[in-house]
Parts: sequence; C-alpha cells; structure tokens
Amino acid sequence: MITVLKPQATDEQRKQLVSWLESQGVTVHVSKGAYQTVLGLVGDVSAIDMDLLKLLDIVEDVKRVTEPYKEANRKFHPEDTVIKVADASVGGGHFAVIAGPCSVESEEQIVEVARRVKAAGATMLRGGAFKPRTSPYAFQGMRAEGLELLSIAKKETGLPLVSEIMNENHLDLFEDVDVIQVGARNMQNFELLKALGHTRKTILLKRGLANTLEELLMSAEYIMAGGNENVILCERGIRTFEHYTRNTLDISAVPALHEMTHLPVIIDPSHSTGRASFVEPMALAAAACGADGLMIEVHNDPQHALCDGAQSLTPDQFDRVMEKVRRVREVLV
Amino acid sequence: MITVLKPQATDEQRKQLVSWLESQGVTVHVSKGAYQTVLGLVGDVSAIDMDLLKLLDIVEDVKRVTEPYKEANRKFHPEDTVIKVADASVGGGHFAVIAGPCSVESEEQIVEVARRVKAAGATMLRGGAFKPRTSPYAFQGMRAEGLELLSIAKKETGLPLVSEIMNENHLDLFEDVDVIQVGARNMQNFELLKALGHTRKTILLKRGLANTLEELLMSAEYIMAGGNENVILCERGIRTFEHYTRNTLDISAVPALHEMTHLPVIIDPSHSTGRASFVEPMALAAAACGADGLMIEVHNDPQHALCDGAQSLTPDQFDRVMEKVRRVREVLV
Amino acid sequence: MITVLKPQATDEQRKQLVSWLESQGVTVHVSKGAYQTVLGLVGDVSAIDMDLLKLLDIVEDVKRVTEPYKEANRKFHPEDTVIKVADASVGGGHFAVIAGPCSVESEEQIVEVARRVKAAGATMLRGGAFKPRTSPYAFQGMRAEGLELLSIAKKETGLPLVSEIMNENHLDLFEDVDVIQVGARNMQNFELLKALGHTRKTILLKRGLANTLEELLMSAEYIMAGGNENVILCERGIRTFEHYTRNTLDISAVPALHEMTHLPVIIDPSHSTGRASFVEPMALAAAACGADGLMIEVHNDPQHALCDGAQSLTPDQFDRVMEKVRRVREVLV
Amino acid sequence: MITVLKPQATDEQRKQLVSWLESQGVTVHVSKGAYQTVLGLVGDVSAIDMDLLKLLDIVEDVKRVTEPYKEANRKFHPEDTVIKVADASVGGGHFAVIAGPCSVESEEQIVEVARRVKAAGATMLRGGAFKPRTSPYAFQGMRAEGLELLSIAKKETGLPLVSEIMNENHLDLFEDVDVIQVGARNMQNFELLKALGHTRKTILLKRGLANTLEELLMSAEYIMAGGNENVILCERGIRTFEHYTRNTLDISAVPALHEMTHLPVIIDPSHSTGRASFVEPMALAAAACGADGLMIEVHNDPQHALCDGAQSLTPDQFDRVMEKVRRVREVLV
Repeated sequence: MITVLKPQATDEQRKQLVSWLESQGVTVHVSKGAYQTVLGLVGDVSAIDMDLLKLLDIVEDVKRVTEPYKEANRKFHPEDTVIKVADASVGGGHFAVIAGPCSVESEEQIVEVARRVKAAGATMLRGGAFKPRTSPYAFQGMRAEGLELLSIAKKETGLPLVSEIMNENHLDLFEDVDVIQVGARNMQNFELLKALGHTRKTILLKRGLANTLEELLMSAEYIMAGGNENVILCERGIRTFEHYTRNTLDISAVPALHEMTHLPVIIDPSHSTGRASFVEPMALAAAACGADGLMIEVHNDPQHALCDGAQSLTPDQFDRVMEKVRRVREVLV
Repeated sequence: MITVLKPQATDEQRKQLVSWLESQGVTVHVSKGAYQTVLGLVGDVSAIDMDLLKLLDIVEDVKRVTEPYKEANRKFHPEDTVIKVADASVGGGHFAVIAGPCSVESEEQIVEVARRVKAAGATMLRGGAFKPRTSPYAFQGMRAEGLELLSIAKKETGLPLVSEIMNENHLDLFEDVDVIQVGARNMQNFELLKALGHTRKTILLKRGLANTLEELLMSAEYIMAGGNENVILCERGIRTFEHYTRNTLDISAVPALHEMTHLPVIIDPSHSTGRASFVEPMALAAAACGADGLMIEVHNDPQHALCDGAQSLTPDQFDRVMEKVRRVREVLV
Repeated sequence: MITVLKPQATDEQRKQLVSWLESQGVTVHVSKGAYQTVLGLVGDVSAIDMDLLKLLDIVEDVKRVTEPYKEANRKFHPEDTVIKVADASVGGGHFAVIAGPCSVESEEQIVEVARRVKAAGATMLRGGAFKPRTSPYAFQGMRAEGLELLSIAKKETGLPLVSEIMNENHLDLFEDVDVIQVGARNMQNFELLKALGHTRKTILLKRGLANTLEELLMSAEYIMAGGNENVILCERGIRTFEHYTRNTLDISAVPALHEMTHLPVIIDPSHSTGRASFVEPMALAAAACGADGLMIEVHNDPQHALCDGAQSLTPDQFDRVMEKVRRVREVLV
Repeated sequence: MITVLKPQATDEQRKQLVSWLESQGVTVHVSKGAYQTVLGLVGDVSAIDMDLLKLLDIVEDVKRVTEPYKEANRKFHPEDTVIKVADASVGGGHFAVIAGPCSVESEEQIVEVARRVKAAGATMLRGGAFKPRTSPYAFQGMRAEGLELLSIAKKETGLPLVSEIMNENHLDLFEDVDVIQVGARNMQNFELLKALGHTRKTILLKRGLANTLEELLMSAEYIMAGGNENVILCERGIRTFEHYTRNTLDISAVPALHEMTHLPVIIDPSHSTGRASFVEPMALAAAACGADGLMIEVHNDPQHALCDGAQSLTPDQFDRVMEKVRRVREVLV
C-alpha cells in the first residue's frame, strides 16, 4: 500500500503518521520527492483502512499495490483449478457445456431437452426452477416441483444438474443439484454467498450486471473463505449504454480472469446478448479465446417458452453450434 | 403494446397472428403502412410475452406503451404518498432527514451521534448493524448486538430507527427498527423483497448501482404487491465510467421519480460521492430540486470509523449542512 | 412512427393533431384503445420531428419503427458490400488484416514492420502520422513527414496504406493513403465526415468510445450521403465501468452490425484491451464470430515505441497470431 | 510516479531499471517490501512513458501520483479564475446565465428571445448557427447567416454572444461572437482545440458524453497550452445505462471540478436531461451546489423549434426559473 502525502505536510505530521502506521504492524518506507513524499507500507496491510487514511488532512492519496483477493488469486495458486462434477470436468483444458431451458416447465420438456443436449455433447443440464424476474407479475418458476423434474431428467440422462438458488433457506431442496448457480442479481448477496461457502457443492457464480472483475473475485472469495473452493466463474454480459443487445458481452473477461485467477471461466452467450441469432457467433468467440466452457439456453419449443424464449436455441440449432465449437477448439489445442 | 410486422409478412400470417392475439383476450387494431404494418394491442396485455412475440419470424419489433408497474404508478395514484414513521413524515411536502453512522460501533458512539443529529434537526436515526462489505475480510457489522445498541439510542432520543437488513431470516431482530433498509446490492434480491412485502414495516429501498429507475419501481412493486405500501425510494449514486467520485449521483432521479411514482424520494449524498467534502453541496442540490429527504452519514469520530469514515460528516459539519438545507427549503416553498 | 396519446386527450385535440400530421404528408391510422389511443404514421416520416411531437401536451410518447439510416441499411441493400483497396478486399467473405505500428517513427521502423507484417499475411499497412493524444504534452506524431515515410514503405512492399486524419485541411497530404481512418474521438466530427463524403477514398470509421451502433451507422451515413460508399466500420472497444482493460471490446457488435448494415466490420483488438497479451485471444474471437478483418498494432521494438507500446505485438508474436487466425477461419468457412 | 516491481524481479534487473530511470533525469527511491519492491520516481516524470514501463517484464504496475494537467490545476493556481466577457463575469462568485434558443431561426426569433432573456436576468445570449446533428438529414443550422442574426440581437440588447464552432476554418466568421463554444462531440477534436488555443476568445468547453473530468481538464489544457487561459467548463450530462433522461447530469462534477481546477464551471440543465420540465429542478440544484453559472435553452415557440424543442423553456417559464435561482443564490451567499 502506498500513501502519498500532501506537499504541505510537515515533518512532525509525517513522523506522527509513520509512528501510528508502525503501531499497526506494518513497516513504512519514506520516499521524499521534490514535490511529494510517498510512504511505502509493507507487511500485512490488510488491517489498514484505506478510506480512513485518505481522510487524513495530510494525505493526498492512498493506492493499493496488491489485490484484495487471496484464495482466488492466481499469484498464490499458479495452476488452473480443475473442478470435477460427476463425470464432467471444467478448467485446465477441460471444456464444459451446460445447456438446457431457461425454466423447467414440464417433465416432457426437461427430459426431451436433456436428451437432445446430451446427444449434442453437453456435459451438464441447466434448468431454472427458482426464477429471478424483474416483475412480480411474471412467471416465477416451478420452484420445488421444478427441481424434482430436473432430478428425473438427471436419472434419465446421467447429466449432472445446474440450477439457480435465490434463498439460502432453499438449500435442502438442492441436494440432487450438482452445481448451484448464483445469479447476476445475487452476486453481492453476501449472506447467500456465506451460506454457500459452508456447503461443498460446486458454485457457478455469475458476474453482476455492473460488477467489476475484481468484485466478482471478491464474491468468489466469500465462498472460498468459507472453505468451499469449487467455484466456476461465469461472464454473462454487463450493462452499458448500448441497447441493441440486452447486455454487452465482455469477452475480454476470459483472458483477464485467466490472468487474475486460477478458477475456471465460462461464457453465457444466451443472456449476454438476449438474441438466439447471436448465440452461435458469441459461443464461437468464447471457444476461440480460451473460455473453459459455455452455458447455453436450449428449448424444444422456444416460441412457447415461459421465459426468455427469444434467446433460446432449438435442439437442432444447438447441434450445429456444438459442431462448430468442437472444430474451433480442435484447431486451437 | 405495439407490434411492428416485417415487410415480408403475408396477409395469411398476419391474420393468424391477430387471431392468436385475440385468443389471448386483447383487441388488435391493424394499421397498414406503405412499408410496414403495425398492430396495436389494447386491453389487458399483461399476459402477452413481449420476448415471445419478438421471436416470431414475421415480427420486427414489439414496443410497450404502458409502464409495467401499477401499485407504484403515479397515473393510478396521482397524489403524493405521505409515509408516517412515528412522529416523522416523508413525502408530500414533508422532508425527512435520516442521519447517523455507517456502522454502529458502541453504545457511547450511537447515543452520542443520535443526540447530536437530533439536536441538528434529523428526524430519524440510521445505523448499520448488518453491513454488506465487498470483502469477506472486512468488518461485517455488530449484527444483533448493533440492533440492541440502536434501541438504546432510540429510547434515549425518541428518534425512529433506520437499519439495513441482509437476510429475511433476521426479520425478528428488526422488531424495534422503524424503517428497514434494503441496500443497493439487494435491490433485486426478490426473495427478500417478497418477505418484506408481507410485513407492514416501512421499507427504504435503495437503487442498485446499475439499475434503471423503472427497475427500482419494479422492485418497489414486489414489496407493494405483497400488500405493504410503505416504500421510500432512495437514490444513492449509480456506476458510470467516471471514477473521481465513488459513484455518480443521478440527481435528475428526483424529478424523474416524482413524475413516475407517488412514492417519496430521498437522496443519499454520502454514499453517492464517497467524500465528506461533497456531502454539503449534494445535500443542497437535493433540497433545491425537490427531494423528499436526505440520508446522511454522521460519525462523532470519522477518522476512526470502522467503515466508510471517508464520507462521514462530523456532528459540527452536519449542523452546518442542516442549517443551509433549511434555508434552501424555506426559500423554495 | 407511432404516437401514443395521453388518456386525457379529447377527440377535438386528436383530430387537430391528425390534420396537422396529414398536412405534413403522412398517412395517419388511428387505433383507439381502452386506455390509450395510438396513431400510426406511415409514409415519409423523415420530415416529422419526434422531439417536437413528444413535447405536445396530449402526446405521451413517440416511437420510431424504422431505422434513421438509409444508405447503410441492410434492408435496402441486402448483399454484403465488398470494398476493394488495391489488391486487398474487405467484406463478403474477404478478410482484411491491417497491421503496423501505432506511430510512424522512422523509415527503418516502418519499412521493417511493413516487411514483417506482409510476410505474415497482412493485407494493408497501418501507421499513425497524425496522432490524437489526450495530453497536449505527449508526442503528436510525425505528421506530414510520417505520411512520406509510409509512402516509402508502400513502395517497398506494395501494401496499401491506412492512416488517420484529424483535420480536413490535411486531405491533400493523404493522396497516397489508400484508406483514411477516422478515429474514435472524431466519429461525430460531422464537418470532417462531410468532407470525407466528398472524396472517393475508402474510409475506415472507428466507433466512438461511448457511441451506439446506430450512431456509428449515422456517421457512416454522413459519408455515404456525400456520395462515398466505401466505408469500413471498426469496433475498437467502448467505455464502461470496468477498468481492468482499457476499454471493453463489444464483440457482439460483429453480428449486430452484420444484421443492421451491409458494410464490412473489422475489430481492433489492440486498442480495445490496451494489452499485448490480450490481442491474440481477442483476434481469435473476432475471427471466430465472423468479423471481416482485424486491425492490429505491430512494432519491431514495443518497449521503445513512442506511443501505445503496451498494446503492440512484436513481429514474431504477430506471426503466431496470424497463423492461428488463419486456422480458425479455415475451419469456419 | 510509483513503479511496483513483480516479486520475481532480481536485484540485477532492479538495478538496471533504476539506472535507466535515473538516466531519464528522475530520482528513484527504492522501497523493498516483504512481497514487493516499490520504486518512487521523483522529479520531472513527464518524460517517462507509463505504458512503456508497464510493459516491462519485471514491472507489475505503474501509478501516477500527480495530475497530468498543469495550467488548469488548482494546485498551481489556488484562486478562482474570473473570466470577463463584456460586462459579464464568470467564476469566483460571479454567476453567469447564458440563455437563448438551440438554433437561430430568424431575426424575429433571436431578437425576441434575446430581449426576453435579458429582461429575466440572463448575462449572455446563446444561439446555435452551426449545429452538430446525429443525422445528415436533419437541419444543420443557418450557419454564417445565423451568426449575422446573432450580431443583430447583440446590437439590440447588448448581450454578449455564445455560439458553437464545428470547424477551425469558420473562425473568421466568429469575430463578433464573444464566447466560442466547443460541443460535447468535439471535446477531443484536438486540432480544433489547438486552433482555439491560438485565439484570445473565451472558450466554453463542454464535457464529452463519456469523458472523465480529468479528460475534460486535459482538453482545457490543450487550449491553455496555446496561451489562451479563458476557458469555461460546462457539464451537460454524461451517457449512462439510464435512458429515462437523455443523459445523466453529473451534478457532483461541480464540487469535483472546483477541487481540481480554478476554472469556472457551469451547468447545462437543458441538454443533460432533454426535458423542459426537468430544467427548473436541475437549475436550482446547480445553483445550490455552487455552480458558476447556467446555460439554458429558451425559445419563444418551443413547439415549433427546428431542433431540441422538447427541452426548451418558454420565456415565461424562464422568468420563473430565474426568480427561483436568484432566491437560492441569495440564501447561500
């Protein structure tokens, strides 16, 4: 941590500040410049409150030089984390394809979609039972019943399940779910993250609409600090001024997160653009730039889907996307 | 709701679509243009899924012409809502000043601050017991104990209490809290909103960092749809590309929300800028443009505050801000 | 164009408005609903001022149903435009690779880089002579002398030239430049766009930092309305709240622009991320999702480049990127 | 400037870097930490290229600790700059009110509006002759003829003139214009800024739609580096995800810029919100938080204005806004 003093800070004031900082257990290196004096704080600075320091009359600025995330930090864990979910693996060269409908609607629907996506090469089945909807008047998901139908589809196909949780009180219902998803709107629902940190389920953590990559890692840190290291990160589009697409897919999150963390990074091309016709090009872009997987909405009848039909692929479209994704991945290995 | 057809839509296709729409209970007015045909849907269109319509091959675009919020909509409730909290009122000309520390830290601190802000004219006391923090390693609040200390301050000063909830499971602890705050990061924690809709507490709903005003009203709608009409809206800064201030205070949210809804609208100048020196000018701006109240962080010792000290006023600074706010309000009435 | 009337609009008022609209040459279809009346305006609505309409007391909202761009609109020109620049082609399946240094610095530098990028498969040479820099104290480019050095490199390698213009008064200096680039900061410098519309040079139009895709097309329209149809669009990153990368590459601009317009769309992975290590993954993503070309910074000595060294590839790195881009493109054709 | 080395940097590498930096004329203070070594660079660091430094293998991060703007920096010029324009003054307690139509349309219009705004207390007359419009098909202003009509209004009322320039080649036409405006879209048209730096006209520099406050000051610096110190800064709304208002007025730019620079700061409530009904509350907010002036669109017949009618006040509305602004200012002095 670096503290820049204001030009008018007196020697006396500087000495007092240095003493106080040293009393907090850090070593302070003083670097006097022509215009400004800079204090370099070394040692364990996690106890120093940056905002408090900035508030002092003689302090001009405080800058952090190390990342605030530890468990998720690639510096302290250089190798890629590989997460195993039943027979599927994600990260470290293993590519996950999570596919299925936005919402579970019926046994026929979820079993049919599960069979089709498995045949096309998906490694996990997604399906929403609890649905976060902007409007209280919109369909909120089949809830517990939806999870039961997912279990049937799992039994039929062997595909591990991915489904979103909205409330820690529902954790018991998720016993048969292999990967618990935290949606974008709950990325900073810290109470939920803490509760998930105490489970040993794999957590699929989606980036919030307006959250930085560092904040995404801090939320992963909440889960990991609880002892659960099985976290998959998912970029699903951020909110910008551009409204032609529903969100703006931040594709550079893939190399950026790979630089920052050892956790696997997957891309959701369905929610990020909100349009079925953009899913294929965005899935190919993700595969080409090194993402560890994809999460794609597939519905056997998108025109009658109860939610987000506009961004769902048909099983036939999904077959074609998978075929191209496979070819792009082969060429890059 | 308006549906624009693609130029290549045939008469047959159009008729099928119109029949289907009518079967959903809406009346359809067809307007044929030189280039495009437009369908005007009237009646109760809430059952029509816009995304589904957009997906149809012959549909170019679908536009909503009425707002999706009802309970919160000024059109159906033209008079300002006035919310009473003990002796304080908010909205319809009543100005609320909610002041206090970011976090409750001790009995001495909260009672001392409560006395000072009451003397300066604050109408409610704020104090964080459960603190949402980006980092799992940061101080998370005194939790239940903090709420107990708030109750002592309430007994001492008579000020009604405002405190943030992070988990519906904590509701029992909030019995003595008069106004339950939903923080920006939980604005779309729909499970929490539903639970609060079933209480009769006043809810202070903060706008999320990257949420539109319409989404803020939809979240208010979640609470109101549960039967709880006591919702105060709070603008506390949005996330933009500008990083000189912590967030960008969207001051035009005041006239905009007043146009859209009958609910009271207050401004938080402390969190929106993140700097104590900007609190006074932003508080005055809020008072001048018609806000229904302010929420201001005050700490008896900001330099040693356990969180957000950098944006807290001292009680003396708060006295001066209150004096100026009063004068601005007098001149505008 | 659709005009939604307020519920309180009287029949008299509505009739007056319809008469006035008809006097402007458009046909008006009236669709009366239970709550609202909607006017559908058909015919040539380009003369109708939407803002004016919105201002009327009885009008609630006005919505456009057709795009404001014509020359650039794919609807009126369904086939991809293929632009020929000397022996190179862009668009309609032809992939352009524009490579070279951020700034021209010396004859040795530009000739050396030109040879290397040509050998690697680049189809055009880029080099900045006039440099837009945020600071007046930063290196502003070699200007006219830089253009002369580019001509030497063109003579040596045969590669057509791409260079940025900042002032229409410099047009004479660009005679030997094959593609004139308009930088992001000048995307809405309408006087410059008009001047370029009167030339017959190919124009490479970069998207502004905070401009929508529609605005990008409106700026292309300025050039095309002057009679110059040779416009290449370039996505180079937009400004968002995320600051880990310099800008956020909006990769979905590729399928989006391909849907909206017939003009070729290329990606600049160097400026969008600002980091050399992200150029390869972003270039591969662009190739995989169907971009019509790439614009990549290459410098023979990035560590001593006079500007933007941090994002430049070495020629060796560029060789490897080109090899992978080629393989991705082969697999997708 | 501060340079943080990577943990793996060897002593040898560090010494080489320090030698090289010293050869560039700066003094280097080395601060070795447990995890990281930090170099403090003092002296004239303007010659050091931050991007180049960041690119080095052993460098983790480079942070600037002083602002890149000098002439505009309040640190080197602590007193407010007061700019005189004929009888009007701006800054240092002097409040400017610049009012008039978006576009000059006729002699009657501009003279009538000039009389009315003068009577209401405006200190300068604005009127657009050259209009930057997103669409090439929209009204582009009366251009030279518009400037002539402005001169007539100036002669009639004595009000100094404010008008926007779009091209340095038009400078001769602006002889009678007292304050030359640079529009938001040209804020980083560096060639235009340089040309204006060589005049001695007062320049009204509007913040770009997505430009930071620091970039605004760097653009002011372009003008000031040319020797022209008469720069007025204008906040006119920034582009965000919120689309209820046309732009988001960044009201905290007022205290922020007052902290950063000695130049006067005015607010444009008309363009920032795009709605006439929001002009009064935003003007009052600006006055209350210490802005040095306002720029307001007034039209004698907004419903028939050729551009931006939706955001223009009538002269009667302007009278009322001025009266309230006066009262707010009185109470705060």
